[in-house]
Amino acid sequence: MADKLKVVVCRDLGPDVMPLLLNNPQLDVVVWPHNKVCERKWLLENAQGASGILVMLSEKVDDELLDTAGPKLRVVSTMSVGYEHADLKALLTRGVRFGYTPDVLTDAVADLSVMLALMAGRNAKETTEIVQTGQWPNFVWSPFAFCGPQLSTITTDPSASALTPTTRTAGFIGFGRIAQATLARLVPFGFARCLYTGNQRTPQDPAADAALAAKFGVREVRRVELAELARESDAVFVLAPGGAATYHIVDEAFLKGMKKTAVLVNTARGTLVDSDALAKALHEGWLYGAGIDVVEGEPNVGLDHPLVKAPRCIVLPHIGSATNETRLGMATLAAKNLLAGLLGQEMPAELSTSR
Amino acid sequence: MADKLKVVVCRDLGPDVMPLLLNNPQLDVVVWPHNKVCERKWLLENAQGASGILVMLSEKVDDELLDTAGPKLRVVSTMSVGYEHADLKALLTRGVRFGYTPDVLTDAVADLSVMLALMAGRNAKETTEIVQTGQWPNFVWSPFAFCGPQLSTITTDPSASALTPTTRTAGFIGFGRIAQATLARLVPFGFARCLYTGNQRTPQDPAADAALAAKFGVREVRRVELAELARESDAVFVLAPGGAATYHIVDEAFLKGMKKTAVLVNTARGTLVDSDALAKALHEGWLYGAGIDVVEGEPNVGLDHPLVKAPRCIVLPHIGSATNETRLGMATLAAKNLLAGLLGQEMPAELSTSR
Repeated sequence: MADKLKVVVCRDLGPDVMPLLLNNPQLDVVVWPHNKVCERKWLLENAQGASGILVMLSEKVDDELLDTAGPKLRVVSTMSVGYEHADLKALLTRGVRFGYTPDVLTDAVADLSVMLALMAGRNAKETTEIVQTGQWPNFVWSPFAFCGPQLSTITTDPSASALTPTTRTAGFIGFGRIAQATLARLVPFGFARCLYTGNQRTPQDPAADAALAAKFGVREVRRVELAELARESDAVFVLAPGGAATYHIVDEAFLKGMKKTAVLVNTARGTLVDSDALAKALHEGWLYGAGIDVVEGEPNVGLDHPLVKAPRCIVLPHIGSATNETRLGMATLAAKNLLAGLLGQEMPAELSTSR
Repeated sequence: MADKLKVVVCRDLGPDVMPLLLNNPQLDVVVWPHNKVCERKWLLENAQGASGILVMLSEKVDDELLDTAGPKLRVVSTMSVGYEHADLKALLTRGVRFGYTPDVLTDAVADLSVMLALMAGRNAKETTEIVQTGQWPNFVWSPFAFCGPQLSTITTDPSASALTPTTRTAGFIGFGRIAQATLARLVPFGFARCLYTGNQRTPQDPAADAALAAKFGVREVRRVELAELARESDAVFVLAPGGAATYHIVDEAFLKGMKKTAVLVNTARGTLVDSDALAKALHEGWLYGAGIDVVEGEPNVGLDHPLVKAPRCIVLPHIGSATNETRLGMATLAAKNLLAGLLGQEMPAELSTSR
């Protein structure tokens, strides 16, 4: 018993994943026993002497937790792709390795990004409310009721009208894996141009952009300034990391620069979008609609929140990665990161804390 | 004045389309002046002596209307792709031509079909309600809360877990233009197989199926029986015409045969799906979720309707074609059909009434 490694798990990861830890004879596993956020007091009490800790986004990984765990701590593993809750320097100083769960949620978040772009253009907030509040029987159909901009181009129009098929332009604030998976999904909708903003410290790379355009079968992939992205895009997707560098990158000036027929989707972090500015923009019609999975200050987003009250604004409670397949993949990866870190092996997804 | 052709228009088609009719010096245009469904009494009064009538889905085109209009009537034009409101034999008997608006709404309905498939899997009914009813601040996050089946496959999983990327199978009840446009959109989500049911009177055509598979870049396109379609599909799309031949084609037996993780989408006609059976199926978990734009008996779908009360069931108030671009295209096409029919010219989209 004395040789067992103590690990603390801040949330029950379910019957498909917990056996990876519970059935390991080398481990002494302590699991937060409730179906709610792990209490800090419990975590600090149980972290003492732990060799590994498995956390969620809700658990701060800071000096206090690491000092409380003490010198046996080898690894912290988070079931999240974000790591704003972890003090990387504090981990580095103590030589504690850090695992996270990138990539596996790419497709789930890309799915949700497309869903929100569609819902924003289709007035899904108001149209679902009509049905859910019992108003459909009294709803007055009219040729243009609830009509918004169509996400796709019209490819077949038998009247020789002025409605010539056009193309659509996608704008990505941040152009990593999730953005590219989103772009791939948009291509059959008629998106033929892709603009993105990237890290200004890295140089432009037109050859890489051309290679991506060829890969996705679009006419153009190009890094641009924010103002051009706002001006040209039919759908803007916020998919950059949170933090100080991107705080309120979508502000009043950006929103004023958007097309009146465009939609904005944020499936990244709430801090990237100024909620008050977006609410104002929707009320005043600077853009058509918005689909928001993350809100600054979440989950403290009540009925009086400006985005909950804003027209043509879909707000979801941060469910970007919430599918069975993806959460199972994330939980499995978090458990495997923990195990590998405990045993000094290569972790499937280790974050360098010296960045 | 005596030579002018009288046309009756059952709904104001807006400032972009009405001038096509109102500015035509050959026409005497009478327009229903209210923003609600055209009253039958008004229509019958004004149809007398009309050479053309432009109707919506809400106006029955029957012996009574045609007899009331009288022998000058040359053309009826409907702003809809469906024509279940029109008695084709009655039109044929009188030599009255009939225009409709196919194709132009293909992309709008395909967009909505994908949106509803995503929303059904993502629990959009319950998750949007959490926010809209002010429950987000008290919402208990857990690793698998609200998780449903992921529409897409997972393409990147850095843990060597059992989560090997799989493919998805789309099932189409009816495989016309809208179904094929929906399939095109699903391919980047990882749909590699396409099953469909077609008119049993037409022979199988494996060569045509193979050509479609190549066109869309999927492994297989194959016509199957309903039972196989139910059994194999991860997402079932109802996209066949209404009418007696397809009445309740999605019934209890079909729903019992579906995968527990599958979603059902109906963007065609409400009569194809047995609402009571679907509500029962959702309550009992025969399938995961449903996205429904059309309901049998609509718009009489109130708070006590079984589908409005069913879990994981998105119900929209028949907005399949409701985008600015598409409704403008439909209205333009309806006006052009009317004009061409009046002048004895080729109509952009004429339905053969002798079918």
